[in-house]
Amino acid sequence: MPYYISGVTADYRNLIARTPEEFRVKNGIEVLTKHRVVEIEPERERVKVVDLVSGHEFYDDYTKLLIATGARAFIPPIEGTDLDGCFVLRKLDDSIRIKSFLNEKKPRTALVVGAGPIGLEMCESFRAVGLQVAVLEMADQVMPLIEPDLAAKVQARLEQQGVNCLLGQQLEAIEGDSAGSIRRVATSGGELECDIVLLGIGVRPATEMAAAGGVELGIKGAIKVDPHMRTNLNDVYAAGDCATTTNTVNGRETWLPLASTSRKQGRLAADNMFGGDIEFPGVQGTSVVKCFDLTVGRTGLNEIEARDAGFDPVVLSIEAESLHEYYPGGGAITLKLFADRVGGRLLGAQMVGEISSIAEKRLDVLSVALGAGMTVEDLRYLDLAYAPPYSTAVDLPLIAGNIMTGKIRGKSCRCDSEGLE
Amino acid sequence: MPYYISGVTADYRNLIARTPEEFRVKNGIEVLTKHRVVEIEPERERVKVVDLVSGHEFYDDYTKLLIATGARAFIPPIEGTDLDGCFVLRKLDDSIRIKSFLNEKKPRTALVVGAGPIGLEMCESFRAVGLQVAVLEMADQVMPLIEPDLAAKVQARLEQQGVNCLLGQQLEAIEGDSAGSIRRVATSGGELECDIVLLGIGVRPATEMAAAGGVELGIKGAIKVDPHMRTNLNDVYAAGDCATTTNTVNGRETWLPLASTSRKQGRLAADNMFGGDIEFPGVQGTSVVKCFDLTVGRTGLNEIEARDAGFDPVVLSIEAESLHEYYPGGGAITLKLFADRVGGRLLGAQMVGEISSIAEKRLDVLSVALGAGMTVEDLRYLDLAYAPPYSTAVDLPLIAGNIMTGKIRGKSCRCDSEGLE
Repeated sequence: MPYYISGVTADYRNLIARTPEEFRVKNGIEVLTKHRVVEIEPERERVKVVDLVSGHEFYDDYTKLLIATGARAFIPPIEGTDLDGCFVLRKLDDSIRIKSFLNEKKPRTALVVGAGPIGLEMCESFRAVGLQVAVLEMADQVMPLIEPDLAAKVQARLEQQGVNCLLGQQLEAIEGDSAGSIRRVATSGGELECDIVLLGIGVRPATEMAAAGGVELGIKGAIKVDPHMRTNLNDVYAAGDCATTTNTVNGRETWLPLASTSRKQGRLAADNMFGGDIEFPGVQGTSVVKCFDLTVGRTGLNEIEARDAGFDPVVLSIEAESLHEYYPGGGAITLKLFADRVGGRLLGAQMVGEISSIAEKRLDVLSVALGAGMTVEDLRYLDLAYAPPYSTAVDLPLIAGNIMTGKIRGKSCRCDSEGLE
Repeated sequence: MPYYISGVTADYRNLIARTPEEFRVKNGIEVLTKHRVVEIEPERERVKVVDLVSGHEFYDDYTKLLIATGARAFIPPIEGTDLDGCFVLRKLDDSIRIKSFLNEKKPRTALVVGAGPIGLEMCESFRAVGLQVAVLEMADQVMPLIEPDLAAKVQARLEQQGVNCLLGQQLEAIEGDSAGSIRRVATSGGELECDIVLLGIGVRPATEMAAAGGVELGIKGAIKVDPHMRTNLNDVYAAGDCATTTNTVNGRETWLPLASTSRKQGRLAADNMFGGDIEFPGVQGTSVVKCFDLTVGRTGLNEIEARDAGFDPVVLSIEAESLHEYYPGGGAITLKLFADRVGGRLLGAQMVGEISSIAEKRLDVLSVALGAGMTVEDLRYLDLAYAPPYSTAVDLPLIAGNIMTGKIRGKSCRCDSEGLE
């Protein structure tokens, strides 16, 4: 949706994966739009539905029920969030409204609240359509989910691209004028004039109706599911942004609403609802975001999370070029790798790279290695595809494996910790 | 080197990873250039060396010896390979000579013999400098190491780029004129006029000296090494393009000279020569080549190799776009996946993609998964990094995992084999 707002995606209709009509014709699935399930009656295996157009209520029986209510954008309980010009970006309608507002009201200055992935994508989109942009973040860094030194690189790039980063500040109020338009915002750090506000401070699972029907909630109010995606109620499943999952690295219940996970959970829940017996192994927390011409990503645990999970994390920071000097293109990637001192198991990786570096390839390689339970020594022998247009002969994951093995083994391994190759 | 010849790489000096001077100053390693070891005397732990400039012979003692003599380009035993204008491309000197020949003799038509990776890179380089190009290949397809249907896509792209593909033909002679220049070549299919010939028909391990000294050879005449990179002789190691290795998928001895493998073997041999105890797990045969604007790669076994190794291979062919339709860029990738019907273990993957598709990312993901012994079901739950600029929400390896699981499990798994996502 940020790319529709910036014009990179020309037509919002391309953002619709499948229309109700396609569901009906291709898959034989009837989709009731403008209907809301207002109540689950698990003992009678039925739901109460309201037709939002006619107001008519009716019951629908189920043999198996999947709750896929997703998550909602969090709107902070402060003054002014209902003003014209204050938006969240969660549903397609939100992006259409933002784009209309940009076209009709021609705002000149935007404030993005929250410097997470959505916030940073929207900084880029607002800059792309010519706005002055500031981003407000409660934490002392942008991208609170990545390590501070990597976040500093992202911040520098944001500032270079004309984004004013206001860190360690909280939004307190949005003030409107007599016409109902935004005039300025008040933050814990002062006042700021702006014409449009985008709230990108996270989402909450939409689980009130499920909870009222007796569905047990887990971490952060998401629906607690087992690896089969079953809730505590017979024949009731949940999947996607409304459901919990397990972090495979620390083994803990987690809630991490991401499109990639939702797709897997939905497919698996469907398999099981139709007689399958498949378990979802969980997630590692892999994510990536494009921030202007940087690629920023992570997988697994960071240092604090690793320590918290009982590991003794060793941290490696390295910077390397994605290609040999003699081949044009490529770019620099800064990698942080986390591994357990005892046994050398890979625990996590984070990176910031130029978009031209294809950092996401190295991230995915490390994600698969992490998922397979590999050690840093295993990384040394990954059989990756080398040719000059694609990587160096010893690519970043192997370089990291070599150096990290030396760090963990100490003198018993003569790994070169200086020459990267 | 093909990129130096085409001008993509401006200065051949950038192709030198380390000069003898850098070895001396940075690493304290003395490199004797223009010297040849002509004999190993293992019982006296010494080698006989000839100074190629002075002709002086001397002996040098060793405590540990590493044989890293590499491989040589194969030159077929036919008439005319010594003509001015007939080249191989193996050493830096070869590329400098080819580039000089292009600059001075201004040939107009080139014949590339062999449609493997080097041959195809040279087709591209010769086209880039304006030559008419034909490629001659003994097999019935280009890229004999990939499946015929994928090779057909590569051939179509070569022809679209003006490369004349002569398949199923063998080089019989190169004919010169009275000045010693090439006039034409004779092939099993007829005659062909050309001004320059590039022989890209493979390499052979340079192991004669080692064999004469009692070093045991293995498959294809390469030096037989154990996982520690030890030869049959005490204190004598071998690594790189002159040495054997193990294919981790079928467990067999193999010889596959690639830069990525040589680097790993060299580092590991050094570790072990200095007291380490590390075993090289072997290779999967991962490789990639850029052919004009296509990326062509493989890892693991193909169908025939899998059957030959005692597996019951199931083959999946799919084509998918690397990005969602709404995000610009990306490109199509055709993937062939090979898995064992019993247990679903991944056995290999091959792909051809537009260079804009970043097919090499998917190849590396599958390479790591293969190396970890994953099944096609494991592929379904890989936690890869998703954002619209980088992939579809369900990326190719997961799509392949979903469909392949359905193929193997049959009706017990309701995997969608039509809708890719």
